[in-house]
This record gives sequence, C-alpha cells and structure tokens, in this order.
Amino acid sequence: MSKVVSTGVTAATADLGFARLDLDRAARTGDPEVVFGAGKTPEQIAAALARLHEAHPGRAVLATRVGEEARALCRDRLPGADIDDAGRTVTLGTVPPPRGTVAVVCAGTSDLPVARECATTVAVFGAEPDLVVDVGVAGLHRLLAERDRIAAADAVVAIAGMEAALPTVLGGLCGKPLIAVPTSVGYGWHLEGLTAFLTMLNSCAPGVVTVNIDNGFGAGVAAARVARQSVAP
Amino acid sequence: MSKVVSTGVTAATADLGFARLDLDRAARTGDPEVVFGAGKTPEQIAAALARLHEAHPGRAVLATRVGEEARALCRDRLPGADIDDAGRTVTLGTVPPPRGTVAVVCAGTSDLPVARECATTVAVFGAEPDLVVDVGVAGLHRLLAERDRIAAADAVVAIAGMEAALPTVLGGLCGKPLIAVPTSVGYGWHLEGLTAFLTMLNSCAPGVVTVNIDNGFGAGVAAARVARQSVAP
Amino acid sequence: MSKVVSTGVTAATADLGFARLDLDRAARTGDPEVVFGAGKTPEQIAAALARLHEAHPGRAVLATRVGEEARALCRDRLPGADIDDAGRTVTLGTVPPPRGTVAVVCAGTSDLPVARECATTVAVFGAEPDLVVDVGVAGLHRLLAERDRIAAADAVVAIAGMEAALPTVLGGLCGKPLIAVPTSVGYGWHLEGLTAFLTMLNSCAPGVVTVNIDNGFGAGVAAARVARQSVAP
Amino acid sequence: MSKVVSTGVTAATADLGFARLDLDRAARTGDPEVVFGAGKTPEQIAAALARLHEAHPGRAVLATRVGEEARALCRDRLPGADIDDAGRTVTLGTVPPPRGTVAVVCAGTSDLPVARECATTVAVFGAEPDLVVDVGVAGLHRLLAERDRIAAADAVVAIAGMEAALPTVLGGLCGKPLIAVPTSVGYGWHLEGLTAFLTMLNSCAPGVVTVNIDNGFGAGVAAARVARQSVAP
Amino acid sequence: MSKVVSTGVTAATADLGFARLDLDRAARTGDPEVVFGAGKTPEQIAAALARLHEAHPGRAVLATRVGEEARALCRDRLPGADIDDAGRTVTLGTVPPPRGTVAVVCAGTSDLPVARECATTVAVFGAEPDLVVDVGVAGLHRLLAERDRIAAADAVVAIAGMEAALPTVLGGLCGKPLIAVPTSVGYGWHLEGLTAFLTMLNSCAPGVVTVNIDNGFGAGVAAARVARQSVAP
Amino acid sequence: MSKVVSTGVTAATADLGFARLDLDRAARTGDPEVVFGAGKTPEQIAAALARLHEAHPGRAVLATRVGEEARALCRDRLPGADIDDAGRTVTLGTVPPPRGTVAVVCAGTSDLPVARECATTVAVFGAEPDLVVDVGVAGLHRLLAERDRIAAADAVVAIAGMEAALPTVLGGLCGKPLIAVPTSVGYGWHLEGLTAFLTMLNSCAPGVVTVNIDNGFGAGVAAARVARQSVAP
Amino acid sequence: MSKVVSTGVTAATADLGFARLDLDRAARTGDPEVVFGAGKTPEQIAAALARLHEAHPGRAVLATRVGEEARALCRDRLPGADIDDAGRTVTLGTVPPPRGTVAVVCAGTSDLPVARECATTVAVFGAEPDLVVDVGVAGLHRLLAERDRIAAADAVVAIAGMEAALPTVLGGLCGKPLIAVPTSVGYGWHLEGLTAFLTMLNSCAPGVVTVNIDNGFGAGVAAARVARQSVAP
Amino acid sequence: MSKVVSTGVTAATADLGFARLDLDRAARTGDPEVVFGAGKTPEQIAAALARLHEAHPGRAVLATRVGEEARALCRDRLPGADIDDAGRTVTLGTVPPPRGTVAVVCAGTSDLPVARECATTVAVFGAEPDLVVDVGVAGLHRLLAERDRIAAADAVVAIAGMEAALPTVLGGLCGKPLIAVPTSVGYGWHLEGLTAFLTMLNSCAPGVVTVNIDNGFGAGVAAARVARQSVAP
Repeated sequence: MSKVVSTGVTAATADLGFARLDLDRAARTGDPEVVFGAGKTPEQIAAALARLHEAHPGRAVLATRVGEEARALCRDRLPGADIDDAGRTVTLGTVPPPRGTVAVVCAGTSDLPVARECATTVAVFGAEPDLVVDVGVAGLHRLLAERDRIAAADAVVAIAGMEAALPTVLGGLCGKPLIAVPTSVGYGWHLEGLTAFLTMLNSCAPGVVTVNIDNGFGAGVAAARVARQSVAP
Repeated sequence: MSKVVSTGVTAATADLGFARLDLDRAARTGDPEVVFGAGKTPEQIAAALARLHEAHPGRAVLATRVGEEARALCRDRLPGADIDDAGRTVTLGTVPPPRGTVAVVCAGTSDLPVARECATTVAVFGAEPDLVVDVGVAGLHRLLAERDRIAAADAVVAIAGMEAALPTVLGGLCGKPLIAVPTSVGYGWHLEGLTAFLTMLNSCAPGVVTVNIDNGFGAGVAAARVARQSVAP
Repeated sequence: MSKVVSTGVTAATADLGFARLDLDRAARTGDPEVVFGAGKTPEQIAAALARLHEAHPGRAVLATRVGEEARALCRDRLPGADIDDAGRTVTLGTVPPPRGTVAVVCAGTSDLPVARECATTVAVFGAEPDLVVDVGVAGLHRLLAERDRIAAADAVVAIAGMEAALPTVLGGLCGKPLIAVPTSVGYGWHLEGLTAFLTMLNSCAPGVVTVNIDNGFGAGVAAARVARQSVAP
Repeated sequence: MSKVVSTGVTAATADLGFARLDLDRAARTGDPEVVFGAGKTPEQIAAALARLHEAHPGRAVLATRVGEEARALCRDRLPGADIDDAGRTVTLGTVPPPRGTVAVVCAGTSDLPVARECATTVAVFGAEPDLVVDVGVAGLHRLLAERDRIAAADAVVAIAGMEAALPTVLGGLCGKPLIAVPTSVGYGWHLEGLTAFLTMLNSCAPGVVTVNIDNGFGAGVAAARVARQSVAP
Repeated sequence: MSKVVSTGVTAATADLGFARLDLDRAARTGDPEVVFGAGKTPEQIAAALARLHEAHPGRAVLATRVGEEARALCRDRLPGADIDDAGRTVTLGTVPPPRGTVAVVCAGTSDLPVARECATTVAVFGAEPDLVVDVGVAGLHRLLAERDRIAAADAVVAIAGMEAALPTVLGGLCGKPLIAVPTSVGYGWHLEGLTAFLTMLNSCAPGVVTVNIDNGFGAGVAAARVARQSVAP
Repeated sequence: MSKVVSTGVTAATADLGFARLDLDRAARTGDPEVVFGAGKTPEQIAAALARLHEAHPGRAVLATRVGEEARALCRDRLPGADIDDAGRTVTLGTVPPPRGTVAVVCAGTSDLPVARECATTVAVFGAEPDLVVDVGVAGLHRLLAERDRIAAADAVVAIAGMEAALPTVLGGLCGKPLIAVPTSVGYGWHLEGLTAFLTMLNSCAPGVVTVNIDNGFGAGVAAARVARQSVAP
Repeated sequence: MSKVVSTGVTAATADLGFARLDLDRAARTGDPEVVFGAGKTPEQIAAALARLHEAHPGRAVLATRVGEEARALCRDRLPGADIDDAGRTVTLGTVPPPRGTVAVVCAGTSDLPVARECATTVAVFGAEPDLVVDVGVAGLHRLLAERDRIAAADAVVAIAGMEAALPTVLGGLCGKPLIAVPTSVGYGWHLEGLTAFLTMLNSCAPGVVTVNIDNGFGAGVAAARVARQSVAP
Repeated sequence: MSKVVSTGVTAATADLGFARLDLDRAARTGDPEVVFGAGKTPEQIAAALARLHEAHPGRAVLATRVGEEARALCRDRLPGADIDDAGRTVTLGTVPPPRGTVAVVCAGTSDLPVARECATTVAVFGAEPDLVVDVGVAGLHRLLAERDRIAAADAVVAIAGMEAALPTVLGGLCGKPLIAVPTSVGYGWHLEGLTAFLTMLNSCAPGVVTVNIDNGFGAGVAAARVARQSVAP
C-alpha cells in the first residue's frame, strides 16, 4: 500500500497515499519522526505512527495534537504506545536515554496541557524534562521557592497565558537559554493568546526567545536540542 | 475679548473665541481646571491658563502636553508659573494642601516623562505624589526594596512600557487601589505601547485598572480622587 | 488530599493537586479569596470553594464565571452558598459589613450580567453596591433622573456596550472615582466589545479608568477597595 | 492645451494632460464640480479650478484639501476666489441660493477644520450651513443650550473625535437625518480617528450614518443633498 | 406588572422589569418604537411589542433581528402581526401612509435578508420602499437596465458584500442621497464584511454615507427620514 | 417558473426567482458558467446547475463549495454529474478539450482540498491540470525531484499554508506565470491563512501573483486563461 | 573589485561586496536582471546596473524604485540609460522586441507612477505595454469608451486606489488574464492601500489575481510572462 | 555623582541620576552588562559605558542601537572602544575568549545591519560568530553552497525580511538550535516586518524559535548562551 521512492537528491520517502513520509529526517537533523495530528483522521494518525515505527524500530516516534477518538484508536491498534490524555500525545517505541535537563515551568494550572505536550516532546527528542507548575508572578513567593531547581536545568521553557510576566521575571533570575511559550489562556480581550505572545516578545530580560501560541511541541524540540548538546556524550 | 454666557441649564462658560471654557467644573466635580495643550498654539495655551487663573485665583490650574515653544512663552508671559520640562506641564496658582498620598512607580528611566506628568497632576488635583523610579521586574530586588514605601500610599500608579509586568507583580504584593499606565517605550514590534497596554489589561492580579497609553494625566486625576477621599478632611 | 507547604519566603499555600491555593492573600492584600471558574470543572470549583471556606471560616469566599452545571453542583454540595444565576457567581460564607458605597450603573438591560457580577464582587470585597440599570445616553432623561443617587456613592462603576458613551457623560456630571467596564454587547462590526473599550479609553472626561471587556469582577475589586478606604473604620 | 472628447456613451470630458475632467457631472447628478487637492501640485489645482470655472461660469466650483502653497497661488492667480485657510478650501464662482439648512455641529475646537470644510461644501452644494462649535457631551449643558437651534435644521452633521459620544446624544434628542463625522483628534491609543469612527458606527441611536475619518467634504455633500430636497423649490 | 414613571425631566417610560421602554420617543423624534430582538428571549420580544402597541395603537411598532422561535411565538401571541421570515422582522399595527420613496438596491441574492430588513424598516418609518435585487457590477448591464427606476426615488440604499463596488458605480450615475450598507457576504479573507465596509467608506463617488455591517435597519431609518421630508405633507 | 429578460444593453438573463443567471457570460468572456455554492440551499444549487446546463448543453458548467447534503442531492437529481467530494465540486456536461497545461502544486496533504478545487476548475475552464502533492520546502528534496515536471507546464499554481515558503522557492526555480494560493492550514497564531497570504504577497521572487485564502477556484480560472492562450488553437 | 564564484550547484554569481548578483537568472527563468533600488545608495544602484549590463550586453537590465539623487547619478554615469522620472525606473541596454501586448489600465491620475513602473517593466520583460489612464468607475462612460482597446490585449493590469472597483467592472467586461494592483492612493481611513487591496482580493469577478500594494513591477513581470507566451515566437 | 546602594535582597546597583545600573547581573546570569542606546542621549550612553567598564574592567561591556552622534562621542571619549557603524554598536573592554560557534546567516544585503548587531553581541557574550550573507531562498544554490559551513556551528541565527522563507528551508537542512530574526526589510504591505515575523512563527520546520523584529541583539544573546554551554570549558 506504500512504496519507497528515492529522489536521488537527498532523501527516501514513504508514500502512504495521503502523505509522503520523510524517512531520512533523523539522519539529516538527528531528530525523531513526528506526526502532527491536527486535521488528520484517527486512521491516518495510527497508520502514520505504525509506518514510522516500522522504519525506525529502535527510536520512539511521536504524535501531537491527537484528539480523543484518535487516542482511543491508538490504544486499540498500537499496543505499547504511551498515551498522555492531558497533553494529547501518543509516543510509540523506546524513548532515548536523556542527555541534559529541561525545566518546563508554567504559570497556572490552565497552562498544564501545553506544559505536558512540551515535556513529552523533550523526552522523545532526547532530554530530561522537569515539570514545575503553578508558579505565576502574582504570587511571587511560589516562583522564588523553585528558583534553584529551575536554574539547575540546561534549558528553561517558560509557559504562561494572561499577562505572561513569568519569562521576564525568570529571565532576570537566571542566565540559562530560555524559551517562552504564550498560551491562549485568559479572559476578556486577550486575543486568544496574542497578549501573552506580545508580552514575551517585548520582554526586557535579554535573550528570551519565543514560539507560537500554545506551541509546547516547538518549544520542546528547541529546548531538547539545546540540552542535548550541553552535555558531553 | 471674552464674554460669560449662562445657559440657564447648568453652567457658566467663558468664550475665548477658539474655545468655551467651562467655569463651573470645580463646583460640579471638585476638580481644578485643565488645559490640554496638544494641538493648541502657544498663544492659545497661555491665554487659556491666564483666563482660568483669573476665574479661579485661589486654586492652581494646569496645562499638560505643553511643547517647548509654549513653555517658553509661559515663562515670559505667566510670572509665577511652575514649569516642568521633563513632564511638559505648566501649573499656575497655588496647589491645594494635599490630602492622602499617591505612589507613582515607574519601571524604567524612559517612563519618567509620563511619571512626572502624573505626579504633577496628583499635586494639582490635591494629593501628595511620591515618585519611585526604575524598579522594573527584570531586576526584582530593586522593586522588593521599595515595597513598604509603596504599600504605605493611599493609591498606587504603576507606569511601564515594553512587557509591562510591573503592575502584576505589584498587584500581588499589596492591596491598595492600583492604576496601571502603559507607555509607548519599547523596540521591535511593540505597537507603540499597545503591548504594554494589553499586558496590563490582562493582569492576573485582581483589581488592576488602566488608562490609555502614556496618559499620566488621566491616572493622576483618578489616583488623586481616590487619595483625597481616603483621608478624613 | 491537600497539604500545606510553606516556602519560607512569604506565604502558605494549599496544594489541591490541580492548583496551589494562596492562603495568605488576605493578610497581604486585605482581600478575600476568589476562584475564577472559567476553564475549571464543576468538581474543581466546588472543591476549591470548600477548601478556601475551611481556611477562612469567618469571611466569604467567591467564585466567578461559574457555569450552569457547576452552579447546580454547588447548590447540592455547598449548603448555605449564595448563588446568582444572572451574574454567574457563587458566594460561600458571611459577607463582611460594608464600608462605603459603590454605584454600579449600566446602560442597557443586556449589560446586566456584567453589572451583577460586579455588584456581588463589591459586596464580597466589603462595600455596599447600589445597582442602577438601563440609563443609556440615547435617552438622556433616564440618566439625569438618577444623577443625585449616583453622585452620592464613594465610587462609580459605569458599564456599557455598543458606543459606550455612558462613562463620558457621567464623568462630566460628577467627580467621584469612576471605573468604566466595556461589554461585548453590540451588533455589526463592534469587535466583541473592543469598540466600547476604545470609547472608554478615549473618554474626554478626565480620570476615567477602565478594565478589560466584560470584567465586572475586576471593576468590583477596584471599586470596593476605593469605597472601603473612603469611610473611616 | 486641453481638448474636449465625447465618448458617445454619456459624457463630455476635458483632457488637461494630467486628468480627464468630467464636464457633465452637474447634468447627471445636480452637483457642482470639485477638485480634490491632496496629491496635486499647486499648479494643477489652480489650472483645474480655472478650467472648470470656464466650463461652468454660472455656478461655483470647489477645491478641498488645498495646502498653504496652493492657496497662495490661487490668491494670485484666481481673483475673486473665496479662500478658507482653516478649512483649506478654495471656492471659485457664485454659490447658488441656498435651499434648506444644515446644522454643522462639532464637539471641540480641534474639530473646527473638519467643520469648516463641511460648512463650505454645504454652501457650494446649495444649502445653508449653520455652524455650532464646542458642544461636547462631557459638559452636557453646552449641548442642551443649543438643542432647539440644531433641531430646526433640515439635516445635522455631528463632528467629533476622541470618544465621539456626540452623535449618540444628539440622535436621542432629535429625529432629523444625522450624519456623523469622526475626526482624528485624540491622544494615546486612538488609532488616528478609528476610535471615534467605531463609536459612531455602533451608536445606539437609530439612523446615524457615517463617513470616513475627517471627511467633512463627504458629509457636506450628503447633507446638502438632503437639505436641498427637503424644501420645495 | 409594568408601571409608568415620569422623571420630570423629559420623558415617560414603562418599566417592564427587564427594560425601561421609552414612551415619548415618537414625540421627540417623529419615529416609531422599535424592539431590537437580538439577545432578548422570545417572551421578552412579544411582551415588549404588545406593550408598545398598547401605548401607540394608531402606529405600527417594529421588532428586528427576531429569531425563528420568537417569530413563532409572535404568530401565536400577536394576531395581526406582519412577520417577514427572510428579513427576520415583526410589525404590529398599521403602517403609516408613505411619504416619499426609497430605492433599496442589492448586489446579490445573498444580500436579500439585509435588503428586506431595510425595506420593512422604511415602510414602518413612513416611506415607500422599492426593492431592486441582484444588480451587481460584475454584470454591469443588469444595473444599467434599472438605472431610471433607481434615480426616481427620493433616497437610495445600496447593499453589497464581497468587493462592494455597487455604491461607487451608483453614486456616479445619480445624485440622490445614497446610503451604503456593507454585508458580511463573501468568502476567503473578507473579515466578515469589513472589506465591503472599507470599500464603501473609501468610495470615490462623493456623498456616499454608510452604516455598520448588515445594518439594514439603520439604513432604513436614515433613508425614510430623508424620503419623508422630501415630499411636502 | 423562470423567464428570460433582455435588457437591450448587453446580456440575456434567466430569472430563477432567487437569482438572475447571466446567460451571455460565455460570449462575453469565453468562460463557462459557475454556481458558487456557499450560502445556497441544496435545492438552489441543483436547480441552477440544471438551468445553466439546459442553456449551455455543449459545455460543462461547474458548482464550487458544494456541501455534503447538496452533493447528495446532485447525485440523485443530476445523472451524469461528475462529483468530487474532496474538492467539493460538481461538474455537469462535457469538459472542453484541454489547451495548455497547469501544474497545480501543493505543499502539504492538508492543502489537498484547495488543490482539487483548483484542478477541477482548470479542467472546466479548458486546460489540463497536473496535480503535484506534498512537496513542501522543509523537505527540499521532494520539491527538487518534481522540478522539471513543474517547469514543463504553461502556468503554475502554488498552494501552501503555514509559513507558505513554496511559491518563493518555486519562483526562483522557473520563469512560468505563477499564481500563489494561501490556505488556512496552520496552528497557533496563523490568523486563518493570513500568515500564508502575507508571505506570498511579499515573496522576493518577482512576478508572483496571489488570490484570496483557500481560493482554489479563482487561481484555477486565472491559470486556465493563461494556459489556454499559450497554445495556438 | 568583484569576483565570479561558481557554487557547482546551479548558478554563477558576481560578488560586488555589498551583494551577490545572480548572473544565471536569465538562463533559469527567461527574465532579465533587475536591481531593486529601495534601500540602496545611488552608488550601489549605478554600480549594480553597470555590472549587470556588462554581463548581459545584449539585453536591457532594469532598476526600480530609483530615487531622485540616484537617477541623477545614473544620468551622469550611465550614458544611454533610459530614465523615467514619473515611474522612478532606469533601463540600461536594448529592450527586446515585444511579443504580445499588455493593457496597463489605471483609475485615476494619482495612480500614474505605479502604472508607469508597470509599463516599463512590461517592456523590459519583453512585451508591449498599452497605457490607458483615468478611467475610474465613478464616471463609467470613460471606461466603456476604452473597452475594446483593453479587450484586444493579451493580458490586462488594472491599477486603482481608494475603493478600487475598477478590476471588478473590467473583469465582468472581458475574459483576459487580469492582474489587479492596489495603490496607496486615498484619504481618510484607507490604511495606506489596504482598502484597495481587500477590494481586489474579494472581487466577485472570477479569476482576478493581485500583487502587493503599489507593486507595479510585480504586476508587470507577471503580465509580460503571460503576454510573451500568448504569441507564437 | 553616583552612589552604590545595596538593597540587602539580592543586588548592588549604581545610581547615575538617570538610571540605576545593575552591577550584579554578571554574577546572577553569567552575562556581560549592556546599555540599550535607543532613547538615551549621547552623554548618557558614554557615561553608562564608562561606569560599567569601571565596575567590570576585565570584561567587555556593550552598547546597542547607538546613533551616529553618540558613536562620535564614544570615539572621542572612550579610547579603545570598538565601534561598528553598520551594526550601530560600541564595545568597551576585552571580549572573552570564545566558546562555541554561532552561524549568523542573512537572506539579503539589506538585513546586514541586524546581522552585524547580532554578530557583535555573540562575541561580547562569549561565542564565535560566523557571518554568512546574501543566501536568500529565491536563489537556492547560494544557500546550498554554504550548507556545510552552517551545519558546523553550535547554534544558527537566521535573519530575513520580506517573505522570510530562509529559516524554514534551513530548518529542514540541519538540526542545530535555530533562532529566527525577522527584519523590517520589504516593500508594499509588509507591516514593517510583521510579515517576516509571522512567517517565522508559523514555520513548518520544527523547533524554530524567534525574537522580535530587527532584534539582532536578543538573538545574539540567546545563541551565545547556547553555544557557550555546548563546548566543555
């Protein structure tokens, strides 16, 4: 049902009928294969995971933004898959031994789904996630209590919605690579996360970088790459 | 050159040719008269101040957003006027004895012009301003060092640009009425202060209210009204 | 099921599994505890109210943005709770004796849910709300008829959608601290309340401050703080 | 230097090299000829006015948005031209005897240039303008004092910047055709008049129509057409 | 269940519990009473219509934006009501004899609901509507065929979505007062009617005025006022 | 039930009650008739297709944006219709023999519905579509492998969502007329395709033109016109 | 001062110190070399033109957006250059014999600079431009008079600002490939051309494609490519 | 003129009158001191650099966004300062020995000022910059020729304006930590860099992070931190 075509230029691909999977990405970038679940049917997600696992049996593959129905299908169809309902991810295969640590810090409990997607991504991409929850700056003592734990990581992901002041305060407290993730958590005129995003983008703490709204996956990829290369193999 | 017309409905006005001054506002609202200088010629600003001072000899009148040329004319024409070049204000007449205190707190030195406009407004509107400068949250220790001083005021004005995290952190530290002023200070895509504004509007600290971008005057009016009525006469 | 951890820095918190409740806020800010209901399950809302009430038996705690299902659960689970269906609030425990009065004024009947959320918040935060409904400026006589009643309050909250001219007219009629709340009421291109918001932000009546769209709670907190300190204890 | 070409379809045009003037518009629409001055050189404006006046000697022609330099040239080159520096208009030829009256009402003195452009347009398009200045709603008594005068007109143009509440209050006071003109007057985040525009567009007073920001000319054309046909010839 | 209160200032109102009806508007503005149905329950709409009809038995009252369920209730509860399902209006009582004519012109069949709301409003507000449908400018011949019929009216309402070129072309063809109504008809990035709105606002045909998106009611009120006063009583 | 009216100006039209079909468009523009299905009932779509097919028996007519229910009705009612569920089109009648080729290239599988709408439009408008799928630039080898095939076409349509880099890379590789179609595919803050749209509009490859978001139909019309006239008849 | 480096992959480039010129574009795309003048110094523009002319002596090279000072330098330094002050272009070398015709149509005289940039681009890219000026749709007869001339071209570029109705009317009159160019011509709230752009993007005439605001160059490239391949060599 | 105050909480600061310098940042974050020059007078910039250099004699301090006049003053006043006119930076003191490499890649020559600001920042923050210029994706061969050089770095900064496709293509070619910097380079409707920004934010290459528009400094800080910790000390 799928055939492997080689373009002679750079890479082998697997044609599933609805997509050409890129089988050489790991060789090119050192990263695992990922299925972005949004907009795909449960059948398509499960099939893509299975096909990629077959091509890379020794290394975990990941699906993100997997809806409820698709997670149920994966539970049936993919024995051994690790399914996270809160973070909406499915992991198939063995996660690599971690190199380096990523502190995944979130301001409120409503930011937790994004934080879990991020933490799982960090693990599948080869680093150790350390999840620190509910340390928003309106109650400063909660954040200060976790300061040393956060500073011990090789990279920090700071996740926040609403006014999103967390990364700025964190950025003034430690000098580690810091990736900010705005979330669409808020009420009133918050523009579905744009407010948080603008705050992060304009942080007066130098060196804060950011990803798109709710993009825990993207932040996880970036942080894992940093953490991995921060520890000698 | 000007005549007083009474509408029989509520108020006396003075017609200067280019504007109808409202001579009964003080009676109606308890507030002094103010000339908004933007878009007016130096001549118009000086004439309006002089006419209002004549109508209210016992109480200071204020002009805001007064440009360099107009300030020079006021220096010549209005002996005894108190002129603040940084805050771009001109005050004519005796400021009332203060009732209550307003802490005017700003995050960075670039926010100073807005802070000074605010502090002068607070004084003319009848309260005592206390100016606390350069206590942005990226260096948290600077703010924490001034915490008790700020909490001792009857009202707090928090002024910040860029990511504008200051009011949220302040709002978690004390329970006084807190008015946030976004400033147009920033770089990159900060939308001339809209970023700071959105941050303040979405603060997770409850009870933060806000005014328009760079509107130190509006915040000063609101804060002075609160402070005045917080102290028994 | 919950444990109290003390950070040694400033505050005691209660860990409910899904959130760290801040048990020392009252000491720090003088305000009661509040559960923001949006995005929480009915179970979570009821549990948080119960836990906070247990920690603060002598002072009412409040939940806002409580959906229909969660209000039903609170009716069952929390005997003695005061539940407002129109304002979507749940209050548990004794409201403190009021200090000062807040006039909560709204332009149209469609603004009533926001006005009720505001009035309940005022009461729980320790002041007396006085609700004045349906006095929009397109029928000016309705507003003028209530003018003295509004001017008698210690703080005014003006709630309006559509073109939101109410706070400007009110601000010209009395000099009390005035908090404007834009609502998402309107039709055509009104940007879900942004129009009302922009109107309020640009009011030519000096000293008008504003909160986010539909944020009756935030306005209530700010107004109650002002009213409370306007009356000697 | 210019030739008249007839397309055989509907209209005669005069080719000035830089534009094809439409010489039959008056026949088609009953309106006079107008030169929009923005983006044209002083030479082009003066030449177009002269050519149109030659084609329509019995009826005034109008130029709007005429800059300082171009007004000076018109003073030299076009004897008998009526030049309004505040409204930046030049009128050449005899204004027709007016039919009907248009009340041109503006909220503040900063709105005056737009109001004068409007009033001149009303006159050139054949109605009588009545200019009412500085009656903003933050001082309600000023507007109420002019209420009967405004209600006596055949059409009303309401001009306002900032929060632009004027048309809504006026629309509740009288039932005449009412055209609202937002102006770019304001400070802070007012989006160069967009705020005033949105307010007018969302007025809860029924039947308010609007034109583009600062477009006194457009409002004048519309109002004059209404006033003209409201009075039997 | 309802009581009439007189404020002594200007007007009598009827308090229905959920709203204060303004019983003197007709005297003040010459216009009939209208219930804006959006956001009201079917019960509230029917009750308001009944109460207003009782107060004004000799003149039709109107409800707009009446949903399907509310129209069904009105059919049951208000015998003699005239109900338009396409335009979502309910009219109760006798429409006044028309003075003047309004051409209600729309570009496509998708604009028809807005056109019908407009036409009904015109009739209830005392003028004669003439509905001209599906004459968009991409097929210019359709519009040119109706040109004389449109030019014969006392006022023109031009309704269009998508690129909304209709009012500009119409404005070049006749000189009658012309009100443009943008509709939310379109596909792709049309911003729910904002595109049509911007087009109309920037029309190079002078004197075009506009109302909010889909606001057939507002255009109908404005056009009827113009038409009524264009014909001697 | 429908009558043919001739305006005497340019065209014959068929009045279906809900629309005036333009029967002379083919003569005027060389293009087939099209029914835009969005916002029309299944009955209306099927009736319009049938009526147009009757008027143009020798040339296929097309309906786009046809929903599931309407496609089912067309299957029943219009034997011989060619129905594409993925592209949501219905074609009735014989497609003309193709002149010229259009490469329809899309970046990801999620862009396929837009690509199929485009390909069908190309065929109905008289050219040969060649569909190239899943060649996004993040895996450059996939695109380079298809380079010669794409360069062989007479016109290229490049369809992409997310960051939409495809047309820029393609535009640097070949010099054929290139029409870019942004799609609403993406996640996070992508503004429903506006991001892709802006990317295409700002392409540094010269000569890239664009259509509205998801508008495969518009791109197909434009590309077919180009391809048709690129091959001698 | 410049060296030619060959990457071995696809192309030769010339390194001028401040830029790598792409010397093989003509071979790859059939198009001439172009220097985009905005943001470059006069020296850089003249040097780049000279270097490209040296590499391609038999084919004209083009610079666009060339400011006044740079055009003066080119007049001195590049004898034989063809310089258009209105369109701000400089052409160096022999323009190829034209294949096919492009009608460059603009609505108003203010659109002329964009039209001239477009026409020059068409010529340098190998087709014959035919410039039709000042045929906006508010005076429909002007456009109808030129209809046959426009329909005779192989491609049409329609340039308009303000409400930008021209391409829609043109698109209904002929079936040639039509590229719309919005211009930043307008007044009031027109968003510097965005209004015109949105109008074109939402045209109800099928097959209209568009380029960025004021981008006469881009439209010229696209139109020339279409015209060239529409005529057998 | 300046005094050192210790808050007892965390840090020593130096009060220059116009700012409180944070003298302990290096200890807290490992980063050097930086003066952000925008909005400061030449005197203030030179004084701040001198004072910070005095406090940190062994480590370079940096000023960014230094205008022409301020750079001239620094040349006079600060012997030994390293001044980059293109990147508008001033460096004072010895740059630390580099750990790790950062490839600073930019699409066009217009992006060079941002690239140089970034490269200088990388050096002052302790890593080795490698500047790769003018490798935009419209000429793909230029980028492919530098692929290995870029992949050899420890972190990559990709700088681009206009359609900003560079980071996506780069992200598909190598797996290093990649920071994208949008620039305000473009023409037409590019929203001063927002277009480039949105493209980068929506890149389909996973793990791309971004900073604010033109923020070469922020990207340099982030990249240097990553590079430094990627090489064992």
